Amino acid sequence: MAKIAICGYGVVGSGVAEVIAENAESIARNAAEEVEIKYILDRRDFPGDAFEKHIVHDFSIIADDPEVSIVVETMGGVGAAYEFTRQSLLAGKSVVTSNKELVAKKGHELIAIAKEKNVNYLFEASVGGGIPIIRPITQCLSANKLDSVYGILNGTTNYILTEMIENGASFDDALHQAQANGFAEADPTADIEGLDAARKICILADLCFGKHVEPADIKAQGISGVSSADVEYAKRLGCKIKLLGRALRTGHDTATAYVAPHLVSTSSLLSNVDGVMNGIVVHGNALGNAMFYGAGAGKRPTASAVVADIIDAAKHRNARKYLDWDDAPAGYFTDSSYVPSRWYVRAQTSLQQIGWAFGKVNFISYPGAAEDEYAFATDVYDENALLKLTGGMNVRSMFRILD
Amino acid sequence: MAKIAICGYGVVGSGVAEVIAENAESIARNAAEEVEIKYILDRRDFPGDAFEKHIVHDFSIIADDPEVSIVVETMGGVGAAYEFTRQSLLAGKSVVTSNKELVAKKGHELIAIAKEKNVNYLFEASVGGGIPIIRPITQCLSANKLDSVYGILNGTTNYILTEMIENGASFDDALHQAQANGFAEADPTADIEGLDAARKICILADLCFGKHVEPADIKAQGISGVSSADVEYAKRLGCKIKLLGRALRTGHDTATAYVAPHLVSTSSLLSNVDGVMNGIVVHGNALGNAMFYGAGAGKRPTASAVVADIIDAAKHRNARKYLDWDDAPAGYFTDSSYVPSRWYVRAQTSLQQIGWAFGKVNFISYPGAAEDEYAFATDVYDENALLKLTGGMNVRSMFRILD
Repeated sequence: MAKIAICGYGVVGSGVAEVIAENAESIARNAAEEVEIKYILDRRDFPGDAFEKHIVHDFSIIADDPEVSIVVETMGGVGAAYEFTRQSLLAGKSVVTSNKELVAKKGHELIAIAKEKNVNYLFEASVGGGIPIIRPITQCLSANKLDSVYGILNGTTNYILTEMIENGASFDDALHQAQANGFAEADPTADIEGLDAARKICILADLCFGKHVEPADIKAQGISGVSSADVEYAKRLGCKIKLLGRALRTGHDTATAYVAPHLVSTSSLLSNVDGVMNGIVVHGNALGNAMFYGAGAGKRPTASAVVADIIDAAKHRNARKYLDWDDAPAGYFTDSSYVPSRWYVRAQTSLQQIGWAFGKVNFISYPGAAEDEYAFATDVYDENALLKLTGGMNVRSMFRILD
Repeated sequence: MAKIAICGYGVVGSGVAEVIAENAESIARNAAEEVEIKYILDRRDFPGDAFEKHIVHDFSIIADDPEVSIVVETMGGVGAAYEFTRQSLLAGKSVVTSNKELVAKKGHELIAIAKEKNVNYLFEASVGGGIPIIRPITQCLSANKLDSVYGILNGTTNYILTEMIENGASFDDALHQAQANGFAEADPTADIEGLDAARKICILADLCFGKHVEPADIKAQGISGVSSADVEYAKRLGCKIKLLGRALRTGHDTATAYVAPHLVSTSSLLSNVDGVMNGIVVHGNALGNAMFYGAGAGKRPTASAVVADIIDAAKHRNARKYLDWDDAPAGYFTDSSYVPSRWYVRAQTSLQQIGWAFGKVNFISYPGAAEDEYAFATDVYDENALLKLTGGMNVRSMFRILD
């Protein structure tokens, strides 16, 4: 019998309880023992809830109970969640989490404590919700040197972009619709401005390259600057605009990571990942490309990943999972503006100025396009070179084209 | 130091040696010890090969060497491969394989021996080549009750169908082209007639439902009956024809599995899995749908999966991986002809006869279609009902529509 405590009885925490109750039999078979929820920590009471009698308000009850071997942290944030995780690990309990902010910022430190105490800190749900991605990278692709990882990591922004692309919605309308459908929060900043995707690409980069990437150090550009005009021009290039988190090796001992909107060819599988779904592409030197697709958020999909980690923690009570990365040596993570690519540029300028700056470019237009601007696709430049070339132009949009 | 022996130095076996040599450093880090190839068993000699001095011709050298803890079986077939696997497991060595035929037919028996000897029998490469799928199903989705699994499991047939769909090739031309490009064997029967896909869907069904499915018991229909006319009609329905392996629960204690061409909507991600690539969709009651995509065959992708298993076997020298299924109780696996679906039918018959049999149907045509036939999409029927309804017609093609 594995006794667990859930900290945070919100959407994900209650989903975890629900899945454990519903699939008890198969979970017990897979964990080779029963999994029982002993405590649920929350500030609130839940009168009438199926787990009402398990609710506690004081974390020390959990920390001090030696029967509890696994703590599930579904609180979010880096305050109490960090403190409770630390205390649980120090008390010799494994911790399972869906908290991407905490893993991205403090994962390295928390894994070190887990290692010292011979317990596990597992976070399959922190990236891609229910999509299996952490284990595939760390176990299934362990024979590969991983060169790059990129993908659609945020369902809210992908929903908004899909509405703009498929139904011609404006950014504002699509955002309101996402909020009305429960796909965006009242304050959607973390999603819209790419901060959520940034945390996730940092975790993926940590695992792929084995070096810690500090979320505050990477550039995150969101989708608030994507207009309906950009969507239309992109279509004429055979592309969809997708917000991608991307991490890649840039040399033998260097790598970079960033979040930005990209033009992605409609002939690629990734461009067909629409709505709230997520898709993550990993490239290994033996495997080539693999893609992982599924629900990147939501109560039950996220709970699916959390409970898989609970099962794994139960099975590895006396063995550590190899899930680890090092501090990055100085200079390891480089500025993403040096990554070369083709670019889509939309600017208020003259044909002459574009010719002077770029020579021949691939101009794009569509019926109804604004008359005071040009849009075009460039050759391959890094961002610094591009900024110099577009220096004299009133640039309205400038996005990478994913090749 | 983990010392291994590779049995069978063909495409996959030599790929395994190549990846181990090339990624030695990262493999050692992931396995927490060096992996060294001590023997390579093959009938042939390989003068000038980098591993020439490791070649042996007598399996007993491997079986009798207690230093060898992991045996890699990349021979194929169920003759010597079965015997060597058995002997290796009985000698207390873990076995890693890419041999889908052996896993599908004898996996259950071999896992039982591995269990008894407290070693592992691992086969990530047996389905989907390099695509992580065995571990995701058994570990990452372990919190779910898995309801169904289906996908494009054979690259040769997907290449042929893609050539027919995208470039208007006939079946024969596409097959010859696949052979010329090394994507199809001189005797392509196992691929074309769906036998390869059948072995793979049996393994997936074993793992998803936890019950052994005998490959000989499931219906496998290949693509030799798919004509250019079918491809054209399917396009008019907004579909591509794809050869799918499919396994699903059909009741509380029953399930089924089969292989057949399906019409798949072009709006689905799976329909965009083209050429030699594979894509596998798994549906769990908590997760919903997830899809796994990548190279389903080929030297290095397959080696990627084999070497990941070698690393896992090295890490679990004194612990067993939970990878297992039971004998199916009598009646558990039911006849796939009872699975209901919409159908695409192409038949030489009269409008009157179609009307009598089906009432209103959705007729399809395209410019240049044969004048002596009708094609239409039906409502939902199981195969037995459909066969009765089409009894008086000269049916040329009849494929399920995947909804």
